Amino acid sequence: MSAPRARDVYERREQPLHAERCGLLVVDVQNWVMDEENRQPRPEFYKAARGHVIANIARLIDRARASGVEVIYTVMENFTGDGRDRSLDYKLSNFFIAKGSWDAKVIDEVAPCGDEMVIPKTSSSLFNSTNFEYLVRNIGLDTIIVAGFLTDQCIDHTIRDGADRGFHMICVKDGCATDTHARHEAALNAFKGYCRMETTDSLLAAMERDFGR
Amino acid sequence: MSAPRARDVYERREQPLHAERCGLLVVDVQNWVMDEENRQPRPEFYKAARGHVIANIARLIDRARASGVEVIYTVMENFTGDGRDRSLDYKLSNFFIAKGSWDAKVIDEVAPCGDEMVIPKTSSSLFNSTNFEYLVRNIGLDTIIVAGFLTDQCIDHTIRDGADRGFHMICVKDGCATDTHARHEAALNAFKGYCRMETTDSLLAAMERDFGR
Amino acid sequence: MSAPRARDVYERREQPLHAERCGLLVVDVQNWVMDEENRQPRPEFYKAARGHVIANIARLIDRARASGVEVIYTVMENFTGDGRDRSLDYKLSNFFIAKGSWDAKVIDEVAPCGDEMVIPKTSSSLFNSTNFEYLVRNIGLDTIIVAGFLTDQCIDHTIRDGADRGFHMICVKDGCATDTHARHEAALNAFKGYCRMETTDSLLAAMERDFGR
Amino acid sequence: MSAPRARDVYERREQPLHAERCGLLVVDVQNWVMDEENRQPRPEFYKAARGHVIANIARLIDRARASGVEVIYTVMENFTGDGRDRSLDYKLSNFFIAKGSWDAKVIDEVAPCGDEMVIPKTSSSLFNSTNFEYLVRNIGLDTIIVAGFLTDQCIDHTIRDGADRGFHMICVKDGCATDTHARHEAALNAFKGYCRMETTDSLLAAMERDFGR
Repeated sequence: MSAPRARDVYERREQPLHAERCGLLVVDVQNWVMDEENRQPRPEFYKAARGHVIANIARLIDRARASGVEVIYTVMENFTGDGRDRSLDYKLSNFFIAKGSWDAKVIDEVAPCGDEMVIPKTSSSLFNSTNFEYLVRNIGLDTIIVAGFLTDQCIDHTIRDGADRGFHMICVKDGCATDTHARHEAALNAFKGYCRMETTDSLLAAMERDFGR
Repeated sequence: MSAPRARDVYERREQPLHAERCGLLVVDVQNWVMDEENRQPRPEFYKAARGHVIANIARLIDRARASGVEVIYTVMENFTGDGRDRSLDYKLSNFFIAKGSWDAKVIDEVAPCGDEMVIPKTSSSLFNSTNFEYLVRNIGLDTIIVAGFLTDQCIDHTIRDGADRGFHMICVKDGCATDTHARHEAALNAFKGYCRMETTDSLLAAMERDFGR
Repeated sequence: MSAPRARDVYERREQPLHAERCGLLVVDVQNWVMDEENRQPRPEFYKAARGHVIANIARLIDRARASGVEVIYTVMENFTGDGRDRSLDYKLSNFFIAKGSWDAKVIDEVAPCGDEMVIPKTSSSLFNSTNFEYLVRNIGLDTIIVAGFLTDQCIDHTIRDGADRGFHMICVKDGCATDTHARHEAALNAFKGYCRMETTDSLLAAMERDFGR
Repeated sequence: MSAPRARDVYERREQPLHAERCGLLVVDVQNWVMDEENRQPRPEFYKAARGHVIANIARLIDRARASGVEVIYTVMENFTGDGRDRSLDYKLSNFFIAKGSWDAKVIDEVAPCGDEMVIPKTSSSLFNSTNFEYLVRNIGLDTIIVAGFLTDQCIDHTIRDGADRGFHMICVKDGCATDTHARHEAALNAFKGYCRMETTDSLLAAMERDFGR
């Protein structure tokens, strides 16, 4: 009895994509993160974000909407006025993004529309602090494409948690950024074992191929 | 209403330690991981593990036992004979550590004793796949010291999940190792914001100072 | 080692109340439930609800607000326009309470105010489907007082889940109602072992006694 | 956008059974519960249990094993020697079923065999306190048949939690019992809305019909 069931043996991590079972999760692409004036200096981040990352996310959102892929946003945002609901970690880190504030809003370039869900969180991985898993299981998703900020913080953590919890996770490596390019690369190298790694172009090509069938 | 409650404001992440509220979590220090013959080549890992990491973990376990700190182990191990209970990620990664096997056992140098808990898992972070959080909340722990393998895989992930879920997390940086020293350092740099970073010596000194009060 | 730790032995389920660690959870006291025209006929329910239950909940809310007890509401309400986020059980049961609708609103008599949380759900117990446990742990609550509708459905289930998850649960037996008085009594009898049972009067007296200290 | 998706509309709660997606969960059918000498007097319970309930569970287990339906057991049992891991509710209720004891064992009449899972718990619903949901999702189950003890305690609670969490729940009403017949009937009436209700005979007939296809 020490051999696995046939159905538990996979040839490869890459599986064909099905639009109705895919979600595109856009993480923390919000005004607070893009506020170069008031955040810590991190020129490499803003260069990457404004140079190609946000544009790539916008392309993915367009394709997702056109194909019936669920687009989901999460943002750092308190649920209470005084932020008493924040995680211990956010309290220890002195993170406080006021409920309903401009800081908490998704940036205009990739704004949600229609019936898309925006899920506030006060944690690193929304799997730990919100009912995200519950929502996407109810909707019928088994594959989560992740893009946004920061590669070595919320993106890394979300990829790992999703993998542990039974989702096929896909990281869009040029749809993410963090403080420096070196940190970005180190993070991709650290968590690549938990997911399928794609570029925006390769993922759009895979959608073209798989959704068309 | 946009100011936090006084009780939610912390001066620093470091808080005094209380023995009865601390757990020492020893992650994946098991025969399978230490099996240099049958695993991938990674000389830097075995050098660090055999050179200082295991010895440091043993010192921490001794101090924990002497002080009433809960010592908890987790190991990669199937719960069923054919491993059908494994996470999707373990199936995709072709990880299969047989139930009750020598591979699944904690290595002799840091073996559990008495009434200590050993929690099998088939995932990266035991928070996602076991009732660890439930157990430690019932026991009354709020601080988790993490040591073991691998720094940029299960250690990183466990630190982040624990932080998100409201625990004071402490990483013993010379009580961990991974495939290369460069990966080890990059991981510590990536997740340092989620925890208190200590060396074995500095943590033992903190225990000496705080438990003595 | 087969005797419990001294700290795990309790003389009684009733423990002194601390205002800052108590939450008052008001369950499903919303227009949809009180809509006698459009729901199934259940005269005993409306008689109890309008006769004393809503008035009792209002009294408890007043006392809670005056004492700094956290008042929390949950309502049945979709998170998406088409309700695709609903639990399988709500889909099977054909429950559909539109997002942002009048049906989903707390009734005026016990309306939320200020910075109080209102948590939408599409399930029986909000512990299963929302981040309620996360929120209340972050806030620092360990005792949950439950009132609302229906005694043998969401109230029963919420009491049991909270008990399992480590909270001191208190049921306000004259702050709840269900379709018939017989069902109400049978439910109280079934789940009384999971909680402390109080009337509105006895609970207000306990608050008076314990909070005054 | 206030109409549900077509795929979210169900004609009926009863769905065709698929053997490889069904689990039979046997709850608390253990020596401690059947120990008439040392437990509280409850003649109606022992009469039902010994008269038909255990025999019905045995019939279902036989059929499940013959068809490849996963048979899973849960028992009340401490995970630590001194029971410090028990839920607050078990501590408040003074429940203490020693790890590895005769009390914790499934009774011989319906004993587990082969690679079947036995999951210890110290709570009412194993969904709250164990990794049961994780295990069965990994195995690929979406339908859980529940039998065992007590109808108005762990059975009721497990049915409700499973329903909330997206499983098709089936209660075997003559495969359960509780202290009195009146309590048994009241509980079935209270939670019937969360599940498909079957007798042993009707469920065996459904298996015969659906598995044969």
